[in-house]
Formats: sequence, C-alpha cells, structure tokens
Amino acid sequence: MITLASDFGSPYPAAMKGVILQQSDARLVDVSHDLPRGAVRESAFWLRELLPAFPPATHLAVVDPGVGTDRGVLVARAGEHVLVGPDNGLLVPAARRLADDVDWFHAETDDPSSSTFHGRDVFAPLAATVHETDTPFEAHERLTRIDEPVDCRLPEATVEDGHARGWVLAVDDFGNVVTNVPGDFLEEKAAVRVNGERVPVGETFGAVDPGSPLAVVGSHGYVECDVNDGRGDEWFGLSPGNDVHIATD
Amino acid sequence: MITLASDFGSPYPAAMKGVILQQSDARLVDVSHDLPRGAVRESAFWLRELLPAFPPATHLAVVDPGVGTDRGVLVARAGEHVLVGPDNGLLVPAARRLADDVDWFHAETDDPSSSTFHGRDVFAPLAATVHETDTPFEAHERLTRIDEPVDCRLPEATVEDGHARGWVLAVDDFGNVVTNVPGDFLEEKAAVRVNGERVPVGETFGAVDPGSPLAVVGSHGYVECDVNDGRGDEWFGLSPGNDVHIATD
Amino acid sequence: MITLASDFGSPYPAAMKGVILQQSDARLVDVSHDLPRGAVRESAFWLRELLPAFPPATHLAVVDPGVGTDRGVLVARAGEHVLVGPDNGLLVPAARRLADDVDWFHAETDDPSSSTFHGRDVFAPLAATVHETDTPFEAHERLTRIDEPVDCRLPEATVEDGHARGWVLAVDDFGNVVTNVPGDFLEEKAAVRVNGERVPVGETFGAVDPGSPLAVVGSHGYVECDVNDGRGDEWFGLSPGNDVHIATD
Repeated sequence: MITLASDFGSPYPAAMKGVILQQSDARLVDVSHDLPRGAVRESAFWLRELLPAFPPATHLAVVDPGVGTDRGVLVARAGEHVLVGPDNGLLVPAARRLADDVDWFHAETDDPSSSTFHGRDVFAPLAATVHETDTPFEAHERLTRIDEPVDCRLPEATVEDGHARGWVLAVDDFGNVVTNVPGDFLEEKAAVRVNGERVPVGETFGAVDPGSPLAVVGSHGYVECDVNDGRGDEWFGLSPGNDVHIATD
Repeated sequence: MITLASDFGSPYPAAMKGVILQQSDARLVDVSHDLPRGAVRESAFWLRELLPAFPPATHLAVVDPGVGTDRGVLVARAGEHVLVGPDNGLLVPAARRLADDVDWFHAETDDPSSSTFHGRDVFAPLAATVHETDTPFEAHERLTRIDEPVDCRLPEATVEDGHARGWVLAVDDFGNVVTNVPGDFLEEKAAVRVNGERVPVGETFGAVDPGSPLAVVGSHGYVECDVNDGRGDEWFGLSPGNDVHIATD
Repeated sequence: MITLASDFGSPYPAAMKGVILQQSDARLVDVSHDLPRGAVRESAFWLRELLPAFPPATHLAVVDPGVGTDRGVLVARAGEHVLVGPDNGLLVPAARRLADDVDWFHAETDDPSSSTFHGRDVFAPLAATVHETDTPFEAHERLTRIDEPVDCRLPEATVEDGHARGWVLAVDDFGNVVTNVPGDFLEEKAAVRVNGERVPVGETFGAVDPGSPLAVVGSHGYVECDVNDGRGDEWFGLSPGNDVHIATD
C-alpha cells in the first residue's frame, strides 16, 4: 500500500499516481491533497495525526516550498512504515509517532526533468522504488544513511497553576482550532478563558447552542476552540501558529 | 467493497480509511466527502441518488451534527447492501431506495476514544466489522434489531391543476436547483413560471443561451431550475429547503 | 485500469464509479474532477499533460457543455491506451500525445435515461464496455470508425528575434500561469518582459523572495509566469486564453 499526501490540490496528484502505477501494482490511498499549502509544520502535524491510522505502508508526502533548491530527499523507516518526501521536517513528527527508533536515509535521484514538480519527477518514482525493492535500505545503491533529518518540532504547551500557554497547531476544514494544550487541562472545569474570553467547556459540540463557542477535547487529544455548527477560527480569531493562553475561569 | 461518504472535507476521511484498512482488504470507493455540512436531509437525498448506482457494498456515511450525544449507531441491511452511520435519518431514504424491505439494527460500540470524531472511532471500525463478519446480523453480538430508525422523509410535491408546489431538495456543485417536482410536470410545456418568474422549458442546458435560465428534467428525474453555463441557485434565489411553486405559464 | 476525469466536482463522479463497478472489476483512479468547468480546451491541455503519466489504461473524461445536444460520443485508441468521452475536442490533444497514430470511433449508446448527465448514463457504461470487451473495436457492434473527431488545437507560440508571442494555456491551483511559449526561450536570460513588465528568470520559485514574480520553465516544459508563495495569475493579470508577449529584456 502506498499513501499519497500533498498540498497540490488538483490535478497534479494524478501525475504522481500515474508515475507510481508505471512501477508498482500497490494499492494507492489518498490521505489528502489539500494539506495547508506550503505550510510544512502544520502539514507535519496532520501527517503525524493521520498516518498512524494506517496499516504498514509506504507514505509519500510532498509539501515542498523549497522545491528545486538543494534541500535533500528523505526516506524514513519507522517500524514497518516507510516515509518518502522532502527533507524539510515534513515527515519527522509522523515518523517519530510511528516508531521509537527511526532510520533516516537520503536518496540519490535521477536528474529531474523539471525543477518545479519533484512530486512527479523525484518523489513518486522514489516511493514506488522503495516500496518495491527487496534490497535492505542500508545496502540500496540510491540510499545513504544519515544521522538526523532537518527537524520539525511541534512545540509543547506549558501548564502551570491553572494557566496553559500553548500554540495553535492547525485549523481544520470545519474551522475547529486545534491547540497543543493537552486535553486533560479541561478536566472538571465548567468554563475556561481563552485569550481572555470566557467560554464553556463541553464534552461535544452539542453541549452548546448552534453558533456558540466552546472548549472541547478534540479528536487529537488536545484542547480545541470550536463553535457548534460554526467556525471556531473566526469566533476566536485564531490561526495556525498563534499563541493561545487558556486559563481556569 | 466499502464506499465512504461524509461532510468531512479534508483530511479527516483519511483516518477512516486507515482504520478500515487495518481490519479489511476491501476495495474502498469515495462517494463524496463534501456532502452538505451538517445537513442531514440534503445529504440523505444525495445518498439516495448515488448509492443505488453501486453494486452490492457496505456503505459508510457520516453526516453527524449530533456526534457525541446519545443518538444511536445504525446498521441497515437493504437487499445485498449494508449501510452504516448515525441513526439520525441520514441513511433511511437510501436504504428504502435500495430495497423494499430493510432490516434495521442498532450497534453497540466500544467506548470511543474521542467524543467528536466518531467517523474514525465508531463508524469506520464498525463498517469494517460488519463488512468482514460471517455472522448473520441477527446473531451478531454487537447488533440489536430495532423496529424503526430515526426517520427522514424527503417530502413529495403536490401537483394539481397545472400548479406544482414543492421544495428544493438540493443545489449541486454547478448551482443547479434540484426540486422535488416530478419531471413529467414539464411534459409538453414550452415555458413555466417558477415562483412567478417565466422561464423556458428545455430538454438540455444548450436549449438556451449561456447565462439564461431554464427549467429542465434533471438527472434525478425531477424538475431542476438551472442556468446554462451559470448558477441556477443565484438566478432563481433558491436554496435547499425553500418552497418552490411551478405553474403552467 | 480505468481513469476518471471530469469537471463535476462532487458528488456526481460517484455515480460514474458505481456504474462502472457494476460492469467491471478494473482498478479506478481519479485523475481530477475539478477540471476547469465547461472549458474544453483548457481541460484538453490538462488531459494531454496528465494521461501520458499512466500505464496503458482506459481513460474516461467528461467536460461536456454540449451534453444532450447532438454532439457525438468518441472512443479513441491510442497505442495501448483507450480514451472515452464527448466528441468535442476534449480527448484529441491527449490521444495525439499518447500515440502517433490514433484510431477514432463513434459509439452508439442506449437512449440515456437523462439528457443532462451523460457521464453516468452514456460515458461511464461505455468506458466499462470498451475496457472489458475482447472484440476488436473495428468489429464492435457499438463502434463505427470515423476519419477525424471534432478537433481541438492547442495553439503554438511564435518565437522570433527575441520576442515570443503566445497564449495562456492554463492557470493551475497554485495560480501559476502556464503559457505555450517553449521553455528554451528563457535559456541564458536573466530577466524578460512579460506583456511589458520586467521580471527575473529563475530556475525555481526559491530564486526570488516570497511574493515576488518570476518567469520559470514549468513542469510542462513551457514558460510559466509565477509568484513565489503567491498567485501568478493575480500578479500578471492573466487568465486562460489571454495573449502573452514575452520579450528579451
């Protein structure tokens, strides 16, 4: 199985699929091609949350604002999973979530026919190659072990004396604001202040009226700032990367 | 074969796919993940129109504004098709279209790890389970037969003396307004009045100039209020749920 | 393998998939269902660029503003590839790119149940039929050889004395403006004038600061007018079909 993720929208992912299918009969599964465009850290968060849902697979992921520059081409072996993409941090949180010990490799690739579409010309053929090979990566002529990839840290929140100081990891399609504040911060609280605004704590969206805000433990295990049947990002005025201060009311 | 439908947009459907593929090698086919968000009745219309196009399959569908509340978890057996989703009416019109006699079951599920993403935590594993099981549903430890699910009626139009009084079932991606007025109302008519506005009746979009409105028998067999190479919803000022009165000119 | 492409958005492609799966166990691969709506020539460009990436397949493509009129139903055999769609020019550039000699056929189809959704009622069942048949197309009861389909020329640019006069073929999801000026026009140039505006020539987006324009050889081999981390179509004020004049600075 090869999964595909990118920020390409449509129709460029089709070129990656065609190239892979020239080399492999693997099942292809789209993860998303609407990852936040050019946003490596936010996309890395999504991959970390989504890829562990899959059985062992080769995961191709391309969010690559540095395409055509000298950034490396990364292959990561994380348990039975393999990840392929640019060495810009994108794959690192997912790989570390998939396995305690990750082996990192740089790949030599043929001179790509374009300098702007390495998804088609570099990463897709490489994903098919590493998916199909029987050669151990350590012995593979195209792969060279490296110590550490370009890193991507998803920062952790600090929690102290009823104050959580964190960061917006992502805003999802529904407008839900996913923070990095651990969900247990909300335990036994009826309401909190989010950047000063008092909102109720709910167990699920239906705990408040449509259009009303709430803080909830989201599906990623973090505090989310949401609006029932509405957009939390607009109500709270929060975007990925923003600071968020959640305090006991 | 397992089909997937939801109002999740991107990237949450990937989590459902990963979970299913942990349990099943079934072919996965996306129906749509852009069903009208939180709109159970409109989504139920789309499922009723789309699912019967498929060969026998397990159909997973999640449009679930009541996620995390005490709404039930529904499994429907409709001929050789099985439908899995929230017991909020979403699956009912499709199931009734797929078979004259539908058997309805409520499912016991493990305590979900989230209260906001039952697509991943409840419905996807359940769809894989019922797809893979050899146990008759009546004897399955997780399933309990129920008499009737939460219903969802797609209202019928009344037609009398050259007047059809109906309802907008859906607006599609093209802006075509799908009413519930049976298409044969347009037979042998050259023009009709839609909420008072006179428009020609055409057999297809090309019957009128680009940008011009028309009434047409759409692909669902109902009267549609469309604009050739334009948006009917904007021209007619109609949205799902609106009343529509179509009269002989 | 059957690939699917259309301008249908969501959810109509699901009906095509269901219909095909009633007739065939082929692998289905989505190329794109967000081809430029109703824009036959621009969509034909995308198909020409994307379909050759695939191994031999049956390619179903529907961008069909003349649905329900008397336009023909086309089947093209291009080497080991087969293309199915409306005879409106959509498939022609792709077929000619896939093979030097293309055989063209018109198809007889059953009277469709709708006059507005031939994707479901005409093209999908036909694609499954020609994919599954063992009968040579010349002998197939539904197919009749024709000399030439309705054509679709993607015009070529003229290059003379340091002036390239061309045309915008497409704007992609990133806002990159794909012209039909051959990429080698940029060779050994540090800057060019695009419709009078001086912009640097870069090898890749990262050659200029975020938000800055550049001319680059895109992944299709043509000159593209792009903005690093921004939208070239907005900066240059260019849309598909616009004239573009690129001159040595």
